[in-house]
Amino acid sequence: MKLVVNEAPALKSAMDAIVNLVDEGQFEITPEGLSLRAMDPSQISMVSFHMPKMSFVEYHVEDTMKIGLDMAQLSNVLSRGNRGEKAELSVEEGRLVVRFIMDKKKRTFKIPLLEIGEGVQREPKIEFKSFVKVNADALKEALKDAKLVSSHVRFVLGSDSFIVEVKGDSGDMKAEFEKGSPQIGELNVNSDAKATFPLQYLEDIVKASSGGSMVTLNLETDRPLRIEYEMEGAKVAYYLAPRIESE
Amino acid sequence: MKLVVNEAPALKSAMDAIVNLVDEGQFEITPEGLSLRAMDPSQISMVSFHMPKMSFVEYHVEDTMKIGLDMAQLSNVLSRGNRGEKAELSVEEGRLVVRFIMDKKKRTFKIPLLEIGEGVQREPKIEFKSFVKVNADALKEALKDAKLVSSHVRFVLGSDSFIVEVKGDSGDMKAEFEKGSPQIGELNVNSDAKATFPLQYLEDIVKASSGGSMVTLNLETDRPLRIEYEMEGAKVAYYLAPRIESE
Amino acid sequence: MKLVVNEAPALKSAMDAIVNLVDEGQFEITPEGLSLRAMDPSQISMVSFHMPKMSFVEYHVEDTMKIGLDMAQLSNVLSRGNRGEKAELSVEEGRLVVRFIMDKKKRTFKIPLLEIGEGVQREPKIEFKSFVKVNADALKEALKDAKLVSSHVRFVLGSDSFIVEVKGDSGDMKAEFEKGSPQIGELNVNSDAKATFPLQYLEDIVKASSGGSMVTLNLETDRPLRIEYEMEGAKVAYYLAPRIESE
Repeated sequence: MKLVVNEAPALKSAMDAIVNLVDEGQFEITPEGLSLRAMDPSQISMVSFHMPKMSFVEYHVEDTMKIGLDMAQLSNVLSRGNRGEKAELSVEEGRLVVRFIMDKKKRTFKIPLLEIGEGVQREPKIEFKSFVKVNADALKEALKDAKLVSSHVRFVLGSDSFIVEVKGDSGDMKAEFEKGSPQIGELNVNSDAKATFPLQYLEDIVKASSGGSMVTLNLETDRPLRIEYEMEGAKVAYYLAPRIESE
Repeated sequence: MKLVVNEAPALKSAMDAIVNLVDEGQFEITPEGLSLRAMDPSQISMVSFHMPKMSFVEYHVEDTMKIGLDMAQLSNVLSRGNRGEKAELSVEEGRLVVRFIMDKKKRTFKIPLLEIGEGVQREPKIEFKSFVKVNADALKEALKDAKLVSSHVRFVLGSDSFIVEVKGDSGDMKAEFEKGSPQIGELNVNSDAKATFPLQYLEDIVKASSGGSMVTLNLETDRPLRIEYEMEGAKVAYYLAPRIESE
Repeated sequence: MKLVVNEAPALKSAMDAIVNLVDEGQFEITPEGLSLRAMDPSQISMVSFHMPKMSFVEYHVEDTMKIGLDMAQLSNVLSRGNRGEKAELSVEEGRLVVRFIMDKKKRTFKIPLLEIGEGVQREPKIEFKSFVKVNADALKEALKDAKLVSSHVRFVLGSDSFIVEVKGDSGDMKAEFEKGSPQIGELNVNSDAKATFPLQYLEDIVKASSGGSMVTLNLETDRPLRIEYEMEGAKVAYYLAPRIESE
């Protein structure tokens, strides 16, 4: 197996989508692409990551293989890649080999593989009837706003607006995005929905999304949230359990 | 009551002049403007803040009202305002409402009001005979210089120069600004004056002044110092008690 | 004695080459220049610093003198110098006087002198047969790479390449610079050499080198390493003891 991306930092950015949430994970590498599905250690959220063959400049995989990795270690190594360097992944003697190459300069890291159980088999089956596409930066800002006030935040989807709000001991906060505002790409609501989620998880989930891009939130009242976005040729979807409130 | 500034960060900058020194304070809002007078918690310094009606783009105040606020909370909320957003202040149901508005995006924070006693009634009456206008950055730099050596600093006003100096265990430091130097806007000395002040308070006091602006120091030997400056349409004056030295 | 440099920050940069490694040191100031030779507190490394007369815009020294200084104190004071300011060194009443001057603004620091024993008399005599000139930034990056994996690093000089490598508990790392690569200025190897050194010392040693400059590594198998570079008109050489491995 040999996988190459043209710009090392792109691989780091894509992998951050996993690293921010998961400690250890098992990649499945098939002739079609690189995938990973894992729960966070507290089992509150799940990430489903896929980077297709075509996002690599070279992609040689004959048989499907599974490799378990410590995500922090992988991230630390990938963060050493610079602009202008290719990043090459292969497996040698039970270790992942990460090679950064630029002309006559070559840096090689070898990371031990981990034995990881089968893990998550499939994604939750939820029929989502409503979603909003929101600018990643605007969403991150609204989460920061909410953090001033509480450790949880409520998302409310209506036919005319997407609202991020929270009531806390030190005050209330409400961010309102009307349909048609530049921060909202698309607002498709078949039935109004609202649910409350832990802020820290939301922050970790959206952290890897890039500034100008759009993040899709699929929301049903008091059901798990599904968040999707793409970056650097990879697609990632997250599920996050709601906090059921007794109102 | 409804007060609006055109650029949210300007309101934050103006309020920083209070926040850096005071934990809790009571604003007085009259048809003429927004004012606050408060001592720092240790009663060593006092701030007198005024932001006139004309510094707002909208200003609707019919009756004078007083609102007590936790300054850190106010500052945290104001810091969430971005360039290009208006900031709107109003009071609803016993809470201060801070609203950031840009097109179809609206963010609202509600901060509980505090019961605060009457506080400081008036400013100390000192007849100052000498003052210097000094560049804010140059003054901040001189305070940083002094911090290397001690926790107190002496200001000396003479007819030809303004001196910031300190003698400490780990060495001495002296910054000398001659009359006519670009850092000195005006030097008006009717009688030489010198006094020593706690560095940390001076740093907190000048922190909110903007780089290129001028800060006025009114100095009398071993009397409280009066420091004044303006930023974002607000005027602020501070009084700081001297340390009486037995030399 | 009076020594003046035209740009204060340059003196700070030059002195950093000492400060990063040594706590206290004794400068020898002769009519030819300013020198210092000292061991780090743990006696694992040695620095030999020389800043010749011609690197100063004014240099008045009649008799050789020795002045002992606390290096952190000297560094803190020098860091207060700004672009556009001259820095002037003199000695008054048993203290080093550092003066920063720009037009009509003058800042003066006085630092107590220390009594320091004779210290290191001479540099180790090692006949080095091989060296490599490597880009300072590329070397710093390779050390950072190594730090992910271990607290020691091995340098390997061959006729065709310079290698920085390390085997650690959490993986391996290898940075390879081939002869002719832009990061290598010169590679002169009369006999292959390799030795292992403590990373933290190497980082402290190269820290003061400026980005685009070249650092010379003189390497013999399992002998002390000699590292040399120049910055801001000063020359500095370091010796660092190897870790003898039982392989």
